[in-house]
Amino acid sequence: MKRNLYLKTTPVNEALEKYTEVLKSVIHKEYENIPVTESLNRITSEAIYAKYCSPLFNAAAMDGIAVIAERTNGATEILPVELDYKEDYIIVDTGDPIRQPYDAVIMAEDIVEADNNKVRIFNAAVPWQHVRPIGEDIVKGELIIPSFHKIRPVDIGVLLSAGITQVKVIKKPVVAIFPTGTEIIEPTEEPVEGSIIESNSRMFENLVVEAGAQAHRFPPINDDYNMIKSSIVNALDTHDMIIVNAGSSAGTEDYTVDILKELGKVIIHGVAIKPGKPVILAIVNNKPVIGLPGYPVSAFIGFEKFVIPVLNLLSGSQHTKRPVVEATLSKRLVSSIKHTEYVRVKVGNVNGKYVAAPLPRGAGAAMSLVRADGFCSIRQELEGIEAGEKVDIELIKPLNEIEKSIVIIGSHDIILDETADYVANHDNDFYISSTHVGSIAGLMALKRCEAH
Amino acid sequence: MKRNLYLKTTPVNEALEKYTEVLKSVIHKEYENIPVTESLNRITSEAIYAKYCSPLFNAAAMDGIAVIAERTNGATEILPVELDYKEDYIIVDTGDPIRQPYDAVIMAEDIVEADNNKVRIFNAAVPWQHVRPIGEDIVKGELIIPSFHKIRPVDIGVLLSAGITQVKVIKKPVVAIFPTGTEIIEPTEEPVEGSIIESNSRMFENLVVEAGAQAHRFPPINDDYNMIKSSIVNALDTHDMIIVNAGSSAGTEDYTVDILKELGKVIIHGVAIKPGKPVILAIVNNKPVIGLPGYPVSAFIGFEKFVIPVLNLLSGSQHTKRPVVEATLSKRLVSSIKHTEYVRVKVGNVNGKYVAAPLPRGAGAAMSLVRADGFCSIRQELEGIEAGEKVDIELIKPLNEIEKSIVIIGSHDIILDETADYVANHDNDFYISSTHVGSIAGLMALKRCEAH
Repeated sequence: MKRNLYLKTTPVNEALEKYTEVLKSVIHKEYENIPVTESLNRITSEAIYAKYCSPLFNAAAMDGIAVIAERTNGATEILPVELDYKEDYIIVDTGDPIRQPYDAVIMAEDIVEADNNKVRIFNAAVPWQHVRPIGEDIVKGELIIPSFHKIRPVDIGVLLSAGITQVKVIKKPVVAIFPTGTEIIEPTEEPVEGSIIESNSRMFENLVVEAGAQAHRFPPINDDYNMIKSSIVNALDTHDMIIVNAGSSAGTEDYTVDILKELGKVIIHGVAIKPGKPVILAIVNNKPVIGLPGYPVSAFIGFEKFVIPVLNLLSGSQHTKRPVVEATLSKRLVSSIKHTEYVRVKVGNVNGKYVAAPLPRGAGAAMSLVRADGFCSIRQELEGIEAGEKVDIELIKPLNEIEKSIVIIGSHDIILDETADYVANHDNDFYISSTHVGSIAGLMALKRCEAH
Repeated sequence: MKRNLYLKTTPVNEALEKYTEVLKSVIHKEYENIPVTESLNRITSEAIYAKYCSPLFNAAAMDGIAVIAERTNGATEILPVELDYKEDYIIVDTGDPIRQPYDAVIMAEDIVEADNNKVRIFNAAVPWQHVRPIGEDIVKGELIIPSFHKIRPVDIGVLLSAGITQVKVIKKPVVAIFPTGTEIIEPTEEPVEGSIIESNSRMFENLVVEAGAQAHRFPPINDDYNMIKSSIVNALDTHDMIIVNAGSSAGTEDYTVDILKELGKVIIHGVAIKPGKPVILAIVNNKPVIGLPGYPVSAFIGFEKFVIPVLNLLSGSQHTKRPVVEATLSKRLVSSIKHTEYVRVKVGNVNGKYVAAPLPRGAGAAMSLVRADGFCSIRQELEGIEAGEKVDIELIKPLNEIEKSIVIIGSHDIILDETADYVANHDNDFYISSTHVGSIAGLMALKRCEAH
């Protein structure tokens, strides 16, 4: 029984730095021209300069009349001035051009209509009042959108106003995703004992889309060295990055690392992170190929820590940090100095302080990802964190939702799930957040003021 | 010259409350079944229960051998126990089923291979060690995803693992967007004096998509009562909401309010908000029809304050609040008690305190939306805010980017824009944030420690 046993692992940051350092010297971004109207969330590859001024001409800033300011001099409440149509004024709506000889606008609210198309005004107009001068908002030739900027709806509006209809953006990286494993089945197949429903690739696919790239998920491949190898080789030409899911550990049929060693260079195999240790970071034909573990939580964490930064490198996206809150840990967490551990937690506000309750820590506990409000990391140099200690929590749930949650800690009565759902369903302005630790631990949490 | 003059406006919250109150009694959500694999960002319409357990069977949690725990009793470093293939153990990879008579797993790292397919072990195995029991993560029949939940990549993974392949979600509302105005031209057309390039509808279209709905943008309609009316009537059957852009003010050709009065009920015309006053909130055939002002900033604010909440009502989405920071206002802002004003600001961290510098306040200052880091609202009851006062800023730029910005305040030297772009382009870990207030005001800002 041949196994790829590996005892040495690299710390996350070191692994990522080492990998991206090599990647930066081999990858190159590609560009394309696309219509501005289809550019939402795309990243500009160069600064964009206005083609036109906005407004394009001197324009009425209000609905009313355009006047020759000089002719309005001396108008007061007691001695209004009468203006003649065309001679002294014309009617304008907001946005209409103001042409010579007119040089000011009086608002509709400030005029009184008189006979023979005359209007009466009670205040003199200052030259250029209520007129938007040409280029007030945007001057032709001005830099309006910088490079490496993610295009938002307001940017699209401004680009079009400035006469820009095409924009040069960074091409979306195309990511090939290969699920592997003889035991895995598609979700639509009927499972038998021993089957594992393939779901990681679907999670990856959607994480790739969220990261602004394009995903191409392939059907599962059996644990067959040559089949996996030829699939990777065939995908290299048409994809910017490849993800191979599972086969990255030490199982008898875990071929990925050998295949990648044969095809290219394995920079890292195994990182000091839990869950997520069996990650492979490789480069084949100057393209990043990443092997991710099969357990869903490991797969997710490996994706977050390694695939996302590489995708940002390829797509020019900025790394976005999650908001962090300081919370009191509700339960002792023992960890090993062999790795940094990422613990999923529920977060609540009890008596004005944030409390973080750990969720099941297993690499297979996919529901802990679904239920989590945030992540608490136990640094590698720590052997654990005591209950009651302050910890930083990276939030994945909006803080305003956490603030409005009733924190319930105790045994897992499924009626709690139903109640939480009922509450969400009935237009209430609060939520129910429950963590299951058994009834004694629940009573203890209540005693320590860590639950409502 | 017929004008819809309106002097009375309704405060934003009152207007929205009044409108949604009526809407809630007439609208109804629609549902559809879609494949889980295509459900990213969709909103569940009901709680989802697991069809299968996960894992589906007792499974090896590690790569190694499955053993009969009893047969390993007494194994120590000095007196290892030898196990016979099949008799006492079989080889398993992570995820393989553990069937009787085997009831524990020993990790590959902890065994030594011996002759005749025997293995030697140095520690006794505890029954069920390194075995994931059936249903450890998900129990068949358990509530896994609640109703009104926005589906994320991790949810898709869990749903598939639990045997769910189809999911009932709320239908995406379909929004018709009608740009109107005889003076407007499409961005691809050559402008002449008097032309306004139509861009608001494209901003709306993308804001609608960001809000998780579907946008249907129509070509511009001339200022013609009957044409606008028939366009709205035709769209009512096939759309869940209609946005009419501009024609909502008091211009001579602003027909929208009269058309909506003829077709249905106008709940609100004019809100106490600046920019954004000429908003029309109407209901026609039990569907929301909103008239938004033509100025880009007014259009954006009207969209944020009224269209987004209505879209959330139709789509079941949660309202997401922006993060808020307290900042020192760098410049006096005078406002009127006739309205709440939304001022776009640049935000920076200077000497450990956040400073907010107001951007141009005009309704036509679309670039202020592009350049803004956040919004500062001046409540209706205030006549202004003094320089140096603390204000709450709703952030639209990530805080970590603000923290890393060099704050430059002064005259508008375009080399600053170029420098900012150069910095962004060259893999630097800082940004340049510049606000243009003239050189004297810049020197004053420096004196008050509000710029770097």
